[in-house]
Amino acid sequence: MRELVLIGVGAGDPEWVTLAAVRAIQEIDVLFVVVKEREYDDLVEARRSIIERHRTRPLTMVELLDPPRPWQSVPDYPAAVAAWRAHRLESWGQAVAGHLGEGQSGGFLVWGDPSLYESTLAIVEQLVASASEEITYRVIPGVSSVLALAAAHRIPLNRQGRAVQISPARMLAGGMPEGVDDVVVMLDGKQAFASIDPAGLDIYWGAYLGTPEQLLVSGPLGDVAEEIIRVRADAAARLGWVFDTYLLRRRDREPARGG
Amino acid sequence: MRELVLIGVGAGDPEWVTLAAVRAIQEIDVLFVVVKEREYDDLVEARRSIIERHRTRPLTMVELLDPPRPWQSVPDYPAAVAAWRAHRLESWGQAVAGHLGEGQSGGFLVWGDPSLYESTLAIVEQLVASASEEITYRVIPGVSSVLALAAAHRIPLNRQGRAVQISPARMLAGGMPEGVDDVVVMLDGKQAFASIDPAGLDIYWGAYLGTPEQLLVSGPLGDVAEEIIRVRADAAARLGWVFDTYLLRRRDREPARGG
Ligand SMILES: C[S@@+](CC[C@H](N)C(=O)[O-])C[C@H]1O[C@@H](n2cnc3c(N)ncnc32)[C@H](O)[C@@H]1O
Ligand SMILES: C[S@@+](CC[C@H](N)C(=O)[O-])C[C@H]1O[C@@H](n2cnc3c(N)ncnc32)[C@H](O)[C@@H]1O
Repeated sequence: MRELVLIGVGAGDPEWVTLAAVRAIQEIDVLFVVVKEREYDDLVEARRSIIERHRTRPLTMVELLDPPRPWQSVPDYPAAVAAWRAHRLESWGQAVAGHLGEGQSGGFLVWGDPSLYESTLAIVEQLVASASEEITYRVIPGVSSVLALAAAHRIPLNRQGRAVQISPARMLAGGMPEGVDDVVVMLDGKQAFASIDPAGLDIYWGAYLGTPEQLLVSGPLGDVAEEIIRVRADAAARLGWVFDTYLLRRRDREPARGG
Repeated sequence: MRELVLIGVGAGDPEWVTLAAVRAIQEIDVLFVVVKEREYDDLVEARRSIIERHRTRPLTMVELLDPPRPWQSVPDYPAAVAAWRAHRLESWGQAVAGHLGEGQSGGFLVWGDPSLYESTLAIVEQLVASASEEITYRVIPGVSSVLALAAAHRIPLNRQGRAVQISPARMLAGGMPEGVDDVVVMLDGKQAFASIDPAGLDIYWGAYLGTPEQLLVSGPLGDVAEEIIRVRADAAARLGWVFDTYLLRRRDREPARGG
């Protein structure tokens, strides 16, 4: 048997690593390290230090190179993305076939939780399906940045009896979604919060959650949007990268008071 | 200074406890144990064994009794709930004032993550606001059952570029919410999945996630709803309680193929 393990390691604080993740790091035979075209050095370093802290025996590391993504301006973009995906799958497949021996276990460290806005799981699933040897795989959940955001602000994500939505920023273009009053926004490279109607909305924003650089701003969206844009730009200029996420919360209408 | 710490301990597997939670368990001076009117013995036992495993020094435990909730049939139910809440706040407040000394830290173990469908955080916030001594508080995030569900089924929660909603079961009465194709349902005592139109929906269901009793069923909702009801009822009869959660996922429409 051969096995792959997706190890959620939490989204910032090295202390958010679970005992299950520590155990997996200690037990794997090979670590597959995905090297992305544009990866933030601080995140690479964070993962490296998690390994260093918890792995006592030597560990074979195999780099998986993510081929460069096609430009959005190529003639047939969907076809180019499909070709890029196939190429990535093939190269990961070869690396796994070449380095994961019979009876061995190979790990992937995944930022936050492997089920939220991560492609590793989907690729591993396909890789296992198309492998010539039988490979099993399993997933170890981790503390997502969504939960880290709520903990840092010390707020519940949902209101009692109500729903909460997790959304990529680009779905926010049309404003707050219908029928839900609490939305956690991820993957926002364009400060989408600043281009929606702020009336009746509060924001709880966090960047570099769980790290010594952690930044938090909260308040009525109309009052703090500019401050967030400034704080974010300053940090990006100083550190060279940003990871931020935020909750948009519709304020409860004031309870009607009889006169 | 006095401090309260809400410690997310994960939603089932004792190995989902984070290093931050272990450290907090080792460092607190007092553990406040919320004793609910109807609490499942297995969950009480799970928390007890987490303490036993990670706490090496003796630990003062203080029980916080949750007063019995008013019946839904009392004349003025909202007023009765408000009175019950005020009573609970007062009794917790007295317990904390009486047992948390100057310079001490008091912990609460919270199942899963403290930000999802939990009242402890809201009560602690009020308690701190109304305390006569200054008390600070902080939150340690944990592996929620939402993430545990995805890990057990080895699925991403979101589809690429799309949103995912987390919802209490009773909001599902009107069927799947508009504008979202992936909904994780919690707190379902009535198998709400069985009373919505199953057309085009898949379900990923899990009970007792992360425990030796873990149960998983997945498939097209129309095909597996009865199986889930049967499996759930059998387990409930055998163990005396159930904790289950599930993802409802709208199947992608088949891509149109030119003839
Ligand atoms: C590719 S997604 C991965 C999410 C990850 N799987 C998780 O569970 O947090 C990256 C996005 O997660 C959010 N994120 C991850 N870590 C973060 C952190 N430490 N602080 C703030 N946002 C973070 C940001 O929105 C970022 O754009
Ligand atoms: C009061 S809420 C607490 C949720 C918790 N804070 C969390 O993050 O998972 C309890 C609900 O969570 C879900 N749940 C918690 N633990 C679970 C488990 N081990 N397996 C399945 N569902 C679970 C169920 O839907 C249950 O009704």
